[in-house]
Amino acid sequence: MALQAVEDQGPVPLVDLDDLPEDGLLMPCGGIGAPTVSIEKIENGREGVRLRDEVERLRGRPVVALMAGEVGGSNGLIPVVWAAHVGLPVIDADGMGRAFPEIPQVSMEVAGISPNPAIMTDERGNVIVFRALDGDWMERIERAAAVEFGGMASSSEYQLTVGEARAGAVVNHSISLAIRLGTVVLDAEHDPIPTLIEELRAARLIAGKVVDVERRTTGGFVRGSATIEGLGEDSGRSVRLEIQNENLVALEGERTLAMVPDLISVLDSESAEAISTERLRYGQRVTVIAFPCDPIWRTERGLELAGPRHFGYDFDYMTVEALHGGG
Amino acid sequence: MALQAVEDQGPVPLVDLDDLPEDGLLMPCGGIGAPTVSIEKIENGREGVRLRDEVERLRGRPVVALMAGEVGGSNGLIPVVWAAHVGLPVIDADGMGRAFPEIPQVSMEVAGISPNPAIMTDERGNVIVFRALDGDWMERIERAAAVEFGGMASSSEYQLTVGEARAGAVVNHSISLAIRLGTVVLDAEHDPIPTLIEELRAARLIAGKVVDVERRTTGGFVRGSATIEGLGEDSGRSVRLEIQNENLVALEGERTLAMVPDLISVLDSESAEAISTERLRYGQRVTVIAFPCDPIWRTERGLELAGPRHFGYDFDYMTVEALHGGG
Repeated sequence: MALQAVEDQGPVPLVDLDDLPEDGLLMPCGGIGAPTVSIEKIENGREGVRLRDEVERLRGRPVVALMAGEVGGSNGLIPVVWAAHVGLPVIDADGMGRAFPEIPQVSMEVAGISPNPAIMTDERGNVIVFRALDGDWMERIERAAAVEFGGMASSSEYQLTVGEARAGAVVNHSISLAIRLGTVVLDAEHDPIPTLIEELRAARLIAGKVVDVERRTTGGFVRGSATIEGLGEDSGRSVRLEIQNENLVALEGERTLAMVPDLISVLDSESAEAISTERLRYGQRVTVIAFPCDPIWRTERGLELAGPRHFGYDFDYMTVEALHGGG
Repeated sequence: MALQAVEDQGPVPLVDLDDLPEDGLLMPCGGIGAPTVSIEKIENGREGVRLRDEVERLRGRPVVALMAGEVGGSNGLIPVVWAAHVGLPVIDADGMGRAFPEIPQVSMEVAGISPNPAIMTDERGNVIVFRALDGDWMERIERAAAVEFGGMASSSEYQLTVGEARAGAVVNHSISLAIRLGTVVLDAEHDPIPTLIEELRAARLIAGKVVDVERRTTGGFVRGSATIEGLGEDSGRSVRLEIQNENLVALEGERTLAMVPDLISVLDSESAEAISTERLRYGQRVTVIAFPCDPIWRTERGLELAGPRHFGYDFDYMTVEALHGGG
C-alpha cells in the first residue's frame, strides 16, 4: 500500500522534529483492531484524508506532519500511505518505539498528553469523534467501535505539538532506526541475523521451527500463542510466545526469557525479515530475539501501562539485559 | 427523575410547533440501550446539558426545544429531566408516536432527515460524536458504544428545524395525547380500562395473568417473550408477546393478534398503568391492548423500517383494524 501510494502520489518526505515549527501540530495515526483482520479487510486509501480533515477541523489549525502511533508492524507504514494522499511529511518518530496492542500504550500517555479528541473512520466513510475520560475509556470505546466496523478501523489519538514531542513525548528517530535496520539486513553479505543482533544488542532466544500456532480473533484483538522447537544448536529446546496482537512474553518451561515492555521479535531465519504475529504459521524456520525497549517504558508510568502485570502476568518486570546480560 | 428535576429547576414548558420560529433547531434525545439496564444504571442528570452543548457546538446555533425521540417508555420523560436542567421547553411531538427499539425507526428517517451528527454521552462524562453513512450504520456503531458503556447511554440524533418538523417529519401532539390518556385513566370513576380502550379505539387482546417471562439482555437490547394466560371471560386462552425492548407481536397459537408497527400495550388490569417490557413479571394481572400506529409507519418506508419483516418475521403487515375491526 505504501509503495503504491508513493508511486501514485510521489515520495513522502521523512522529517526531523528539528525541521518543524515548535507549535506545529503532529497527527499520530494508524490502524486499530486485530491484525489478522487487516490481512483481508483492506483500506480504501482515503482514511487518512478524512482523519487529517477532521483533526484540522477539531483543532482549528493545520497538521504539519503525520506520525506513526506505533512503528511496529503495518502501523509503521500506514502513515506513509496517508501522508502521500494528504501531501504531508512523516515525522521521524513514533509513540512506542515498537508495537503495543492498546491505545493508551503510547509515549504521549506517559508524558501526560490527552488522547482527546480521537477520530476513527472506516473504509466505508463512517466517522466517529471520541472525547473519553481517560486513555482506558478511549481504549474501551474505540475498540468496541473497531469491532463493530468488522474488527479493524483507522484512527488518530493523542495529537500533540512539535514542542511537546521535542520535550520527550515521543520516541524520536524510530523511523530512521527502522530504515537502518532494513539496510543492515539487505546489505548483509552472508547470514543477516548475527549482524542484526549486533546492531540491536539483542539476545538470541532460540532458532528453530514453528510447531504450533494458536490464535483467536476476539474482542478486537488477536490472542494466542506460538511454540518454536529448537533446531541445530537449540535442538531439544522449546520456547512458547504468548500473544496479544504483539508478542508479550517468551517462556521456556517455567522460565521467562523476555517480557513486555521489551521487544520480542520473530525473524525469518534465512532473510531476517520480521514475521508479525498474524503471519506466524506452522513450519516456518524462525529465530526469536529480544531487545531493550525505549527507556520511557521503564518508568513507573510506562510499566503501569505496558509492563507484564498490565497484561495479567503475576510477576514483575525484569529487563532483557538482566535476564541475558549485555545491553 | 422528571419530578425531581422539575422540583429542583422549576417547571418545563410544553410548547407547540406553532409557537416556535421556522428555523429553530429541535434536539431529539433519549436513552439508548437495554431498558432492563436502565432500572439499575441511572443517569447523573447532566447528560442532557452535555448533549445540548455539543449539538449547539456542532450545529453552530442554539437549540430552541428538546424533543423526545420516542414518547413511549422512559424516553418520553427523559427529555423533561434534561429540559429542566438546560432551561429549555419540550416540544409537543416525538419521533415515533410510540416506542421502537432501533435508532433509525423514527419519523425523521422516514422524512429523509439525516441522523448526523449523533452525540452520545454516559453518566461518567465520556462524549462520542458519530457521522454515519446512514441510519443502519448509526444503529450499529451507537449500539456498540452503548453496550461498552454498560448497556445504556444517552444520545441525540436526527436534529431538525421547526420547519422540517411542521412539514411532517415528526409525530405531532403526542405528548399532549399522553397527558390526555393519563388524565382519562386518573379521572375514571370505576374501571379505567374500558375508558382507555374507547379513547384509543384499541382492540382488547386478552385479560389475564402473566405466567411466564423470558428475557435476555444481549447486544444492547432486551429480547424475549411473555405469556399471558386468560382469566374470567378469557379463561382457557393464552397470548404470547414477543419482545425486542418493545412488544413486537402478539400471538395466540398460530394466529397473530397484532404486530409492529401498531402498538401493543400491557396494562395493569386494575390501575390501567402501562407496564413496560422490562417491568413485566410473573403473576401480574394485566390487560393487553393493541391500537393503530401513526400513519407515517404505514407508508412503504415506514414498514421497511419498522414492519414485521424488518424484525425477522416472515409475514406481511396487517393493521390492527383489519385484524379486529374498528379503527
